Amino acid sequence: MVKIGIVGGTGYTGVELLRLLAAHEQAEVVAITSRAENGRRVDELFPNLRGHYALAFSEPEVETLAACDVVFFATPHNVAMNLVPQLLAEGTRVIDLSADYRLKDAALWSRWYGEPHASPEYLEEAVYGLPEVNRAKIADARLVACPGCYPTSVQLGLIPLVARRLVDPAHLIASAASGVSGAGRQAKIDNLLSEVSDSFKAYGVAGHRHLPEIEQGLAAVAGQPVGVTFVPHLLPAIRGIHATLFAQLLAEPEDLQTLYESWYADEPFVDVLPRGVFPQTRTVRGANRCQLAVTVPQGRGTVVVMSTIDNLVKGASGQAVQNMNIMLDLPETMGLQQVGLLP
Amino acid sequence: MVKIGIVGGTGYTGVELLRLLAAHEQAEVVAITSRAENGRRVDELFPNLRGHYALAFSEPEVETLAACDVVFFATPHNVAMNLVPQLLAEGTRVIDLSADYRLKDAALWSRWYGEPHASPEYLEEAVYGLPEVNRAKIADARLVACPGCYPTSVQLGLIPLVARRLVDPAHLIASAASGVSGAGRQAKIDNLLSEVSDSFKAYGVAGHRHLPEIEQGLAAVAGQPVGVTFVPHLLPAIRGIHATLFAQLLAEPEDLQTLYESWYADEPFVDVLPRGVFPQTRTVRGANRCQLAVTVPQGRGTVVVMSTIDNLVKGASGQAVQNMNIMLDLPETMGLQQVGLLP
Amino acid sequence: MVKIGIVGGTGYTGVELLRLLAAHEQAEVVAITSRAENGRRVDELFPNLRGHYALAFSEPEVETLAACDVVFFATPHNVAMNLVPQLLAEGTRVIDLSADYRLKDAALWSRWYGEPHASPEYLEEAVYGLPEVNRAKIADARLVACPGCYPTSVQLGLIPLVARRLVDPAHLIASAASGVSGAGRQAKIDNLLSEVSDSFKAYGVAGHRHLPEIEQGLAAVAGQPVGVTFVPHLLPAIRGIHATLFAQLLAEPEDLQTLYESWYADEPFVDVLPRGVFPQTRTVRGANRCQLAVTVPQGRGTVVVMSTIDNLVKGASGQAVQNMNIMLDLPETMGLQQVGLLP
Amino acid sequence: MVKIGIVGGTGYTGVELLRLLAAHEQAEVVAITSRAENGRRVDELFPNLRGHYALAFSEPEVETLAACDVVFFATPHNVAMNLVPQLLAEGTRVIDLSADYRLKDAALWSRWYGEPHASPEYLEEAVYGLPEVNRAKIADARLVACPGCYPTSVQLGLIPLVARRLVDPAHLIASAASGVSGAGRQAKIDNLLSEVSDSFKAYGVAGHRHLPEIEQGLAAVAGQPVGVTFVPHLLPAIRGIHATLFAQLLAEPEDLQTLYESWYADEPFVDVLPRGVFPQTRTVRGANRCQLAVTVPQGRGTVVVMSTIDNLVKGASGQAVQNMNIMLDLPETMGLQQVGLLP
Repeated sequence: MVKIGIVGGTGYTGVELLRLLAAHEQAEVVAITSRAENGRRVDELFPNLRGHYALAFSEPEVETLAACDVVFFATPHNVAMNLVPQLLAEGTRVIDLSADYRLKDAALWSRWYGEPHASPEYLEEAVYGLPEVNRAKIADARLVACPGCYPTSVQLGLIPLVARRLVDPAHLIASAASGVSGAGRQAKIDNLLSEVSDSFKAYGVAGHRHLPEIEQGLAAVAGQPVGVTFVPHLLPAIRGIHATLFAQLLAEPEDLQTLYESWYADEPFVDVLPRGVFPQTRTVRGANRCQLAVTVPQGRGTVVVMSTIDNLVKGASGQAVQNMNIMLDLPETMGLQQVGLLP
Repeated sequence: MVKIGIVGGTGYTGVELLRLLAAHEQAEVVAITSRAENGRRVDELFPNLRGHYALAFSEPEVETLAACDVVFFATPHNVAMNLVPQLLAEGTRVIDLSADYRLKDAALWSRWYGEPHASPEYLEEAVYGLPEVNRAKIADARLVACPGCYPTSVQLGLIPLVARRLVDPAHLIASAASGVSGAGRQAKIDNLLSEVSDSFKAYGVAGHRHLPEIEQGLAAVAGQPVGVTFVPHLLPAIRGIHATLFAQLLAEPEDLQTLYESWYADEPFVDVLPRGVFPQTRTVRGANRCQLAVTVPQGRGTVVVMSTIDNLVKGASGQAVQNMNIMLDLPETMGLQQVGLLP
Repeated sequence: MVKIGIVGGTGYTGVELLRLLAAHEQAEVVAITSRAENGRRVDELFPNLRGHYALAFSEPEVETLAACDVVFFATPHNVAMNLVPQLLAEGTRVIDLSADYRLKDAALWSRWYGEPHASPEYLEEAVYGLPEVNRAKIADARLVACPGCYPTSVQLGLIPLVARRLVDPAHLIASAASGVSGAGRQAKIDNLLSEVSDSFKAYGVAGHRHLPEIEQGLAAVAGQPVGVTFVPHLLPAIRGIHATLFAQLLAEPEDLQTLYESWYADEPFVDVLPRGVFPQTRTVRGANRCQLAVTVPQGRGTVVVMSTIDNLVKGASGQAVQNMNIMLDLPETMGLQQVGLLP
Repeated sequence: MVKIGIVGGTGYTGVELLRLLAAHEQAEVVAITSRAENGRRVDELFPNLRGHYALAFSEPEVETLAACDVVFFATPHNVAMNLVPQLLAEGTRVIDLSADYRLKDAALWSRWYGEPHASPEYLEEAVYGLPEVNRAKIADARLVACPGCYPTSVQLGLIPLVARRLVDPAHLIASAASGVSGAGRQAKIDNLLSEVSDSFKAYGVAGHRHLPEIEQGLAAVAGQPVGVTFVPHLLPAIRGIHATLFAQLLAEPEDLQTLYESWYADEPFVDVLPRGVFPQTRTVRGANRCQLAVTVPQGRGTVVVMSTIDNLVKGASGQAVQNMNIMLDLPETMGLQQVGLLP
């Protein structure tokens, strides 16, 4: 059994890790930390876990965590970067769901997060945990930086086009929408049901922190700089990300449906839908899966890709478990074969 | 492997059976029928099933179904009662999720369903599939009638009180609310999002078809007639039933929290919450579980029980799989240990 | 024009007062206060008001408020009771939407609100602002205490039965559900969309602060003590209250439909629906209206009343404007004839 | 008083017309037709109208309708084009909310609607009822074709850019989302709450019927052909359209905020939000208003415009009343000054 520690277990990615790991035959969660809820049983905070865990929250202590095989950080940014170096020094492997190690450039990180990075010397070593791009590196990594939810959906949707240089890389457009759980389990007026239900809005239009991450990832597979106009929107829904991606074709391409199907043919968690079928966030609800469709409306030279994930699963905790499986040489799909909850 | 057939797989209880059976290590679905969708792949209709089933819908034929070990009917009423006799004659065991065999009295059935019963001679034999009451009979049954969703939540909530004769049996009150999926996957204006979202209403107040089923079940455990005033409401939600149950205590009782906890101590799918904690439908979303709370507000002699289930799981398909496990002497929890999807 | 001040305009009852008063031909809002938002334009906080108000929030100052003809308190409890005495002393009339002056008994108030009352000497004078009961007293009042949202719906639903003594007054049951806006515009995890959407739960079962208010009001019209078991629930909806009320008939009554229709025949904002039609919260969305239905299911002696209001209109700000119209001898319906927003 | 007839009053645009006209001091609805509901009171179908209308649905008869000053068609396409010629012949003015007279080119109409146009000789005369473009022509029109909901939001958002030729007209992108009421009050599985709640999807990507209307309208103000990639999405919400519009700037433009503010300075129903504020559908809920924001994220040459309307008001019935006011030389805002319902 793999001994697992979770730092910051009171948020939505924390409870989702626990849900997924409860179904993982090799996982044993031995510690879950929260300063605020220290001593409280996790199933008291999250009654869906009753009968599945006897665990209580504890103070985050390096000693306890270092005794784990793997430690997940399900924290806001600015936590992992202070604690990870000690864990790595103890030989513990780390999967960070936060933004702390996603960007390679410490200056860029500081500009978007508004503070200096606490352990920039690990940015180079950290492996960006998108298995569809970095599977081999993940296998050997000590420190994996799990991609953000929007970046997962946007990158998986655009990678075949930019990697094959079929589209203008300078004018990519990502119009994406996320369920409210993406904003986390935090007391904010903006995310009250009364504020966001039965409504829709764009936010972060001037610049969302996922933008540099998206551009870094796409530039890496393109081998050239890319420019993305990224407009996120808030959905009156709990879970789900739907990215609608637009790009200008540089030439009349080969058949894009075939390209996408072959590109992702061996990926267990990327599902290219049949021609003419478009994804819905509900068909991936609770599942570790990205569903994709690609089309060129009216044959006019603008390609449209639609990409959906569950922001808490393939966009966070499911992808984290997928990374863990790869790191530990377990079957990549172990514990991740839940069928999406429909309706 | 258990060979399974599903009659009527295009509705919500059908897709939910498929979701649950995909995680059941002994289940092999070999046939799923639908006249309307004959020939179409199930994962075309329900893309959440992609990668989990290669199955296509077929015409309902006795020969194919009779070759199964177990056949589930996930149909509206008035289908099973015409087909079941032939399957039983062939030695196939049947689990009927519809209302056809729930009532013991054919005349009562006819009054509530507005037509004669097609095979009343099987009403006596049919076992009412509430494992918490009839586990032993279910084990030997050829034909199990799965309880309705409201009846499951209401009966599990009231059984300890009426079985122990602690309350006035003539004036029980059940004020219950269901997500819209309880109305099925049918094209009706009344269930459009534009009609039911951001709203709430009672319906079927004069008499809902689940009333006689509730009264039959409670009378059986009480050993005396019971009278229930049952008011169902429609929730602006997809899944979930919440029953708020009121009864007048006949005397100062023993501690009801203790009674409920001991009554259900050995039940794998009934979870009595700690004193002072009240259930939410979301904590049982997707899970085969009934969560209960009991209290006597202000100590005034009116007991209030709150009972929640997922109408498609413990209220339908999950309970059906639980019955199958019991019938086939498999571990009762096999394939049913999913953690509720929260948030 | 009536000069109006609003204390505490940043919550939902505040913005709703502004919405309604914008359509009121005699109303001129001259001051709206908020310490936190002092200096900010109201239409910056609530962009639906753009073009309707040029007003900015200001510090609450007695001098400014005392210059108004009427001052509304759209505050949490414990604000009005400290400020109202000064305004009354200046001759300003006050309509308090908070709970501060609803209960007549200061000791009872203290027990439920957990602190001493700051101006108990005004409890007797304060008129409980349910126009259907106290219209004449409201006309002359200096201080009106607007009823709570649940109490409005529950009292209007039960008044004919208890006033006519047709039901057992000791065992009334109110199973009610409210949209999340009833919890106010406050940063609380419990009211995030991710926590309450697609779910349903009871809360405050042991004792909700609206219980003593309901019992006080019903006892007054009954002329005898009443006992209510009150279970509120949280709806995954923004607005709306639906109360499902149960009572035991003492005898075979006259026709209840006729009773209700005649009881409320002259009330402009209480609408008894035709026999067999049940109310929905959406048909009163945005409207100052209570829609009622009464029935005795299966003719068994338990009467069921369904009562719906918009918690922010007839349950708060609309009723407050209705009270203002009565106090100022304006037509009672002035500014309150909006049609409910359906769908 | 203006005598008004409504053809097809059982849908959402019909009930919304009635809601708005109830507040219009010069409007008197004298006939509302529906074959299916002939003889039924409108407030029986729509209980929010109780107390506001005594009207019943009647068979659509030319004689009755021709006696009206104005007739609204709140019908699916393919109704108005058969009946309008007779009404015009009788001297009745017509405001058509359907798609029948929106396109100038009968062949184009046939291609998108899959049938021949029944009265193509009126396409030239019909005035496209977007007051912000065609106010003068609307004033004199006998026949006004009200714009579709998406076309209203997309055109109002892009008009300043294309009219001033600031952007590449060949590669405009409209990523828009609509509440489910846009699909009408029709019994379709696809629009059940259980199918669309808590989800999001694109639809009609290959070609939505509003595309040629958008392109026709923009080309007219641009004075040159335009090409739009239009991807509509379905929101889990009742009302509201949010269009996110992308265009490539041809040069470093003047300040776009100033351009938009001045362009719409005199428009009563177009509201350009302050710099840095982005619209939400909820702030225009129930209001006849388009709220706009314009920005160039990261200063990279891609302009993003966000445009919100209530699809049933400025996107349909409110715009229809606005057109009526213009046609009848009434104040353009009469009956249309409702404040949006927030929350």
